[in-house]
Amino acid sequence: MGTYMDVHHGMVGITADQLHEAHQADLAIEKDEGVHFERAWADPSSGTVYCLSTGPSAEAVQRVHQRTGHAADEIHEVPLTV
Amino acid sequence: MGTYMDVHHGMVGITADQLHEAHQADLAIEKDEGVHFERAWADPSSGTVYCLSTGPSAEAVQRVHQRTGHAADEIHEVPLTV
Repeated sequence: MGTYMDVHHGMVGITADQLHEAHQADLAIEKDEGVHFERAWADPSSGTVYCLSTGPSAEAVQRVHQRTGHAADEIHEVPLTV
Repeated sequence: MGTYMDVHHGMVGITADQLHEAHQADLAIEKDEGVHFERAWADPSSGTVYCLSTGPSAEAVQRVHQRTGHAADEIHEVPLTV
């Protein structure tokens, strides 16, 4: 299991409701891929969303995001945390 | 007070010790700027580091990082979180 930070661009104007809805959609199916989305943070001004997850691979994280209609633009494994 | 995600590039090969040291250096002076660095995540392969903080402004977050010798390449206020 790894820890991943993924980044979405182009989400300018995203609202709290939309972020919540997208996160809930991910949570609803994440078990299929052995992934867990822990937290997400959004900057509506620049349209950037960061998601923190754990899972077996970056590909598994991406498959969840793809199925819920919001593929990530970047996914980085982040093995080091403080 | 806002919540900020900042991103550092070019940290290829960063070690757990280096991340810990950089974080401790920020913690040691953050009060001067009313900032608090909560967590950080590093991907040594791509050289990307993400820092989550709270503070009065992105500029205040950057001043801490500058004084400790690792200015951020991007700082996004992230008012929405789940």
